[in-house]
Amino acid sequence: MANGDFHSFFSPEGVVIVGARRSMGFGFGIPAFLKKNGWGDRTFLVNPSGGEIGGMKAYQKIADVPGPVDLAIVIVPANAIAGALTQIAERGIRHVIIESAGFAETGEKGRILQEEIRELAARLGLRVIGPNCVGVINTENRFASVELLEESLTPGPLSVIAQSGVFGNILLDFLFQRGIYVSKAITLGNRIDVNECDMLDYLYDDPATKVIAIYLEGAADGARLHRTLARVTKKKPVIILKSGRTSEGKQATASHTGSLSGEDEIYNGIFAQTATVRAESLPQLIDFAKVFTTQPLPQGNRLGVVTSSGSMGALATDVAVAGGLSLEPLSEATVRQVRDIAPDWMNVKNPLDLGPSGLFNQLTPMLIYDPQVDMALLIIAVPYSYIKVIKQMGVKLADAFGELHEVRAKLAAPKPFVITVVGHADLVDEISDIAGDEIPVFTSPEAAAAALAGLWKYTKNVGKTKA
Amino acid sequence: MANGDFHSFFSPEGVVIVGARRSMGFGFGIPAFLKKNGWGDRTFLVNPSGGEIGGMKAYQKIADVPGPVDLAIVIVPANAIAGALTQIAERGIRHVIIESAGFAETGEKGRILQEEIRELAARLGLRVIGPNCVGVINTENRFASVELLEESLTPGPLSVIAQSGVFGNILLDFLFQRGIYVSKAITLGNRIDVNECDMLDYLYDDPATKVIAIYLEGAADGARLHRTLARVTKKKPVIILKSGRTSEGKQATASHTGSLSGEDEIYNGIFAQTATVRAESLPQLIDFAKVFTTQPLPQGNRLGVVTSSGSMGALATDVAVAGGLSLEPLSEATVRQVRDIAPDWMNVKNPLDLGPSGLFNQLTPMLIYDPQVDMALLIIAVPYSYIKVIKQMGVKLADAFGELHEVRAKLAAPKPFVITVVGHADLVDEISDIAGDEIPVFTSPEAAAAALAGLWKYTKNVGKTKA
Repeated sequence: MANGDFHSFFSPEGVVIVGARRSMGFGFGIPAFLKKNGWGDRTFLVNPSGGEIGGMKAYQKIADVPGPVDLAIVIVPANAIAGALTQIAERGIRHVIIESAGFAETGEKGRILQEEIRELAARLGLRVIGPNCVGVINTENRFASVELLEESLTPGPLSVIAQSGVFGNILLDFLFQRGIYVSKAITLGNRIDVNECDMLDYLYDDPATKVIAIYLEGAADGARLHRTLARVTKKKPVIILKSGRTSEGKQATASHTGSLSGEDEIYNGIFAQTATVRAESLPQLIDFAKVFTTQPLPQGNRLGVVTSSGSMGALATDVAVAGGLSLEPLSEATVRQVRDIAPDWMNVKNPLDLGPSGLFNQLTPMLIYDPQVDMALLIIAVPYSYIKVIKQMGVKLADAFGELHEVRAKLAAPKPFVITVVGHADLVDEISDIAGDEIPVFTSPEAAAAALAGLWKYTKNVGKTKA
Repeated sequence: MANGDFHSFFSPEGVVIVGARRSMGFGFGIPAFLKKNGWGDRTFLVNPSGGEIGGMKAYQKIADVPGPVDLAIVIVPANAIAGALTQIAERGIRHVIIESAGFAETGEKGRILQEEIRELAARLGLRVIGPNCVGVINTENRFASVELLEESLTPGPLSVIAQSGVFGNILLDFLFQRGIYVSKAITLGNRIDVNECDMLDYLYDDPATKVIAIYLEGAADGARLHRTLARVTKKKPVIILKSGRTSEGKQATASHTGSLSGEDEIYNGIFAQTATVRAESLPQLIDFAKVFTTQPLPQGNRLGVVTSSGSMGALATDVAVAGGLSLEPLSEATVRQVRDIAPDWMNVKNPLDLGPSGLFNQLTPMLIYDPQVDMALLIIAVPYSYIKVIKQMGVKLADAFGELHEVRAKLAAPKPFVITVVGHADLVDEISDIAGDEIPVFTSPEAAAAALAGLWKYTKNVGKTKA
């Protein structure tokens, strides 16, 4: 199947909303969203009672829709889906997003109904996303089959594939708040047709997508997933959060989107063989997305840590080493440079514990520029009473902690660089402002080290390292 | 040694600051802090040049200090410590907090100096906390040997013992922002005398301390730690974050507070045998502190989950089950109750996925009150566009999500109850406001499940369960 076959899902010529409504819900929210985002003249509402909905004309039947249309978004109740699909096919539309719930996720009756519409859609030659999903999002042309906040529509390098609708609108509600921006998102729901491999193939060719994050409950086709991941990860990093690790978790997912999760060990094998990065939790999926979309791949696994707290350095080191990174001694030249300006009590090693010296702005560049360092972590653990005092003295935090962008810009070869701030929430915000969107800021040493280890794991497994 | 022997560290009759200064730093900040918090007439500054410091008289010698004093806080450089200790002992003071760095954490020279002052302190009969620490905090009487924010001084049930100073002032900079309030904190530094077991013994008897959190790099005395934890955990939960799990992490800690970490497996054995709860990371230590200080111990391990997202329910289930919790079917009575009001598509089971029904306020109490449920997790994953709409309609979030305090108050027997909010940061804040300090709000399903599993682990291991 050619990739172009999915184009209409993301950039339709015209879209029919089957099940537009006057009352609160998707049937009201989606038309309003599309109109607001410039799709008003290409969006056609269908509601048996006709009239107007939110200032847009409602057609009584799909057959009545006048314009060119190549995508249908279906929101009618489960038992009305079959009829809708037939009319959609008769109108010449081949791409359908079924958002309605009430299928395999609800039990045996729903499973039978789902099987019926699956067979019908195949017979009619339709390509279907869903049911039980919120469909697609494309920030580039502001097209989405789900209502989104204005702030969520800033285009970016991450694309998301998920079985669950939460990874559509709800994930996008807060990704931008972490400085992570999305190109496409696809929520697959119960997958009567289009599955994660179809979307991986599509995103493989999508120039705007640089990194792919997936939430998976179980593979639609394990062998194809293995092949697809092997191909896609060679070009773009793929991060997967998979639930159903325990039999109870599997049961929870089985009722949810009607899939049966496979064995966790098999998945681990597939991911390891294909350079797929597995996230251990939802927060880690987000952490990895942030680091993979903003940082270059490292040239090696040598981590340099500069920290104002030895204990935070130790916690980061434990996680880094367990994740395959190494902490090598600093080069002799760097040690000499640091000793020239460091107080006597400073133990010049890696992690470099600068203690209460306040020498962030001078020592951070020395560590980053060290040729023995392939990637760097700066840990800021500073009492807020100290921050208040230096502010009162007129010192700018950007000066106290160093102009980190400039430091980075001067690197001969790009190196991953991340920051951890342990302390008052205002300090986290202030350092985040200085760091900007391009330098990730974490609030725990472990999360930062794990994210860098994930970056290295991909680099090594995909064979993109020099070594 | 009687516990009363440590009383002067936390509630001194009078305190001498050896190394008070006019320039920025601890020597200036600590006197100012004590004066501001009502300790001005019991705080005596010592500085060789005499005069005034921040409006307080500075004595030239320790011998000159007039009032009754039973504690000395020492901030002079490392090479001046020995002299200070001698004068402190001559003045009749037996309790000393040495905050100065420059000892074993800096290398061999410092290690020798540290051994010298250890021997001297023992010969002089002094009890010493430190060196290389920020000493103690007692929010009850607003006494601290370190400068703190006003907001950090709200008394609470958590006490903290740590080898690292970060777990003093910096931890307190943000614990209150998570609704966690502290009674005592002790940072031990290089431990030439007072160690974690001394402080565990002290907190065992401290009526204000209900839960103890520890950051440990290595035990001062492994056998005593084993005995002490066995005794203390029978009365109060102890949560430990231990670094130095890898040899590289050990090296990082060895340079930091001069301890050599033991083998990680040995520690795991000690913790398991003593009902000590191990936190896997700094964020988890904080999560556990929140849950242990606010929730009752569960009567059993049966978790009930109510969620608006099946995927979030599955992720929580995986972590809960891996952590020893079980998800039992809901009781028949609860199933009937739920079916009475639930839409047809709802699959009535545990986790109870209420999907887009919005029935939080009705279904959450049903789940919590179910006799098959020993503890409950509510997962709110809702698009912020929906929240905006219901607010515009004049619906209060407390009504939409239920008056959770009232629900809880009506429980015949107390049950742990926590919330996870996945979504927009404003929604997290708004639900946190509704939840108040007594119902923990997490932002990931995994963190909430892990915290409840930790609570159960303690309950089971300490034998406090009915079963």
